[in-house]
Amino acid sequence: MTTFRIAVMPGDGIGTEVIPEGLKVLQRAIDASGEPVELVTTTFEASAKRWHETGETLTDAELADLRTHDAIYFGACGDPSVPSGVLERGIILKMRFGLEHAVNMRPSKFFAGATSPLADPGEIDFIVVREGTEGSYTGQGGSLRTDTPHEVATEVSVNTWYGIERTVRFAFEKAQARRQKLTYVHKHNVMVHAGHLWRRVVEHVAPEFPDVAVNYEHTDACTIYMVTDPGRYDVIVTDNLFGDILTDLAAAVTGGIGLAASANLNVDGTAPSLFEPIHGSAPDIAGQGIADPTATILSAALMAESLGLDVVAKTIQTAVEADLAERGDAERSTAEVGDAIAARIG
Amino acid sequence: MTTFRIAVMPGDGIGTEVIPEGLKVLQRAIDASGEPVELVTTTFEASAKRWHETGETLTDAELADLRTHDAIYFGACGDPSVPSGVLERGIILKMRFGLEHAVNMRPSKFFAGATSPLADPGEIDFIVVREGTEGSYTGQGGSLRTDTPHEVATEVSVNTWYGIERTVRFAFEKAQARRQKLTYVHKHNVMVHAGHLWRRVVEHVAPEFPDVAVNYEHTDACTIYMVTDPGRYDVIVTDNLFGDILTDLAAAVTGGIGLAASANLNVDGTAPSLFEPIHGSAPDIAGQGIADPTATILSAALMAESLGLDVVAKTIQTAVEADLAERGDAERSTAEVGDAIAARIG
Ligand SMILES: CC(C)[C@H](C(=O)O)[C@@H](O)C(=O)O
Ligand SMILES: CC(C)[C@H](C(=O)O)[C@@H](O)C(=O)O
Repeated sequence: MTTFRIAVMPGDGIGTEVIPEGLKVLQRAIDASGEPVELVTTTFEASAKRWHETGETLTDAELADLRTHDAIYFGACGDPSVPSGVLERGIILKMRFGLEHAVNMRPSKFFAGATSPLADPGEIDFIVVREGTEGSYTGQGGSLRTDTPHEVATEVSVNTWYGIERTVRFAFEKAQARRQKLTYVHKHNVMVHAGHLWRRVVEHVAPEFPDVAVNYEHTDACTIYMVTDPGRYDVIVTDNLFGDILTDLAAAVTGGIGLAASANLNVDGTAPSLFEPIHGSAPDIAGQGIADPTATILSAALMAESLGLDVVAKTIQTAVEADLAERGDAERSTAEVGDAIAARIG
Repeated sequence: MTTFRIAVMPGDGIGTEVIPEGLKVLQRAIDASGEPVELVTTTFEASAKRWHETGETLTDAELADLRTHDAIYFGACGDPSVPSGVLERGIILKMRFGLEHAVNMRPSKFFAGATSPLADPGEIDFIVVREGTEGSYTGQGGSLRTDTPHEVATEVSVNTWYGIERTVRFAFEKAQARRQKLTYVHKHNVMVHAGHLWRRVVEHVAPEFPDVAVNYEHTDACTIYMVTDPGRYDVIVTDNLFGDILTDLAAAVTGGIGLAASANLNVDGTAPSLFEPIHGSAPDIAGQGIADPTATILSAALMAESLGLDVVAKTIQTAVEADLAERGDAERSTAEVGDAIAARIG
């Protein structure tokens, strides 16, 4: 029997509603696979509620404890009652940086049965490989003469050859295993320091993957293609901030953030990876039991895959696709969607 | 007779093809208006060709000469034969920074007859007010241990209360004169230094405009709404980089960058403003005479408006809308579109 220790962090808002559905489907798929696998879960509380009560976000001791797990399954976090940035920087980014989640991988697939806002979405099936530990997300910078008419605030995007190379190499590997097409996206005509470093790293790694065709797009141009010709993409690799923006847009185009899964991967095996839906805590619909758990269930498939449970991953993926194909317009509760997907597994 | 001195800078690629159409339509609209207005144009060469021949982009002497004009009419610049960033930083950004183009105003309207990639675009009519002289565009930063595996490259976003306030105030004024709705867009949950400065400036200016309803969206969320519910926007105000990305997306959604005009405005009257289509030089279709000059013609309307020629601006706008409404699928050359629009003026 192989035991996997999963750190479960439902978080805030709809995070607490969708995570149980994901765990339900994951367990069902493991049972159905007949594999000698056991999940042991530890629940971590990292939320607005806790911050209000204790002033704590995620402590260093908890970060250390997370390291003893095989994977982290995360819901969402954030609430309007907490100043913007406190939970994001204190929980989400603390894990991405502290656990070296070098790659934020976000698949975008237009599933049969999903509804796109595009008139003619065509076939869409790409992944975005977003750098996860650098760029404009480092928190570097500050402000001077704060709250006066002479205030200056800086925000420093920090980019390293090391950090970019591991992300770019991962993206090339993915492209190699898919349709051999890699698009790297930046804005190197303006952000010349970081942009040209990205360009040089891509050019350095490319010869190792002679079968992969590489092209470059400016971020602004990429948003245009995302709505006029999203079928052109196979693998996109880009920096942290551009990746944040492009993956929300990609999710919208392929049927909404209710379906968009993501994996924050530690690619060196030095710490557990984290799996989460890309939607947030959605305070506007929280507490009603109507959030779509599909993205969270698909994130469980990504988690299974990263734990080497390929059959389990495939089973979940297939059940979700079948559910989506027949979903129609019916209004279902969060639990009903989870149950329906679980039921397809048997 | 009032004389306006216009600096004309066709630039590269399709820039040289669309600018003459814009001037043609502008002159026709002035003639038709019967206003005692005379245009005197000076052509400036700022292009890839010149850079190859002389190594020059736009000299300081030329920047000084530009200041003696009433407005600048710009086509596009950029060519794959020139290293990325050289012409952008040496020409486009040199003017935006040197002439204090505080506000980059980009209207997005879904005109009757235009084709949106969205299944149900609905009514779209908003403007994006993009800060034009700060943020990630300053070129601040650098790289260390360049071209080694230990390279670090920084890109510093610099944001000032002064720069943000004049942009935000302009946006509030526009919203006041339109549908009283202002959405400010940033990513203040991550970029806390710059983001919270933006927030504080918006909160500082808002009380002066009690009729304007203000809301905030994260940039990533804004890209979602841009494709699911673009009709929600009236005026968007945002920073330089986010504005760059969002306006290309907005242009795509409302029928393509062939229609998207823009104004780089000096709001203090200390230097001439600049008017340009937001598409670039489009080397892939340059030289064929097939570029759509509509965005450039609409930019001439923005220029006329800023010169106080409201009737001329309205005349151009109306002629363009009429042309678009009856445009259909016919393939027309650049000159044919210009002629057709001019002909509607009489
Ligand atoms: C909540 C926020 C910190 C986060 C990000 O910006 O990365 C989110 O938007 C995401 O994409 O996971
Ligand atoms: C060409 C480039 C420097 C420019 C920008 O990034 O601002 C362009 O994309 C634009 O939007 O006008």
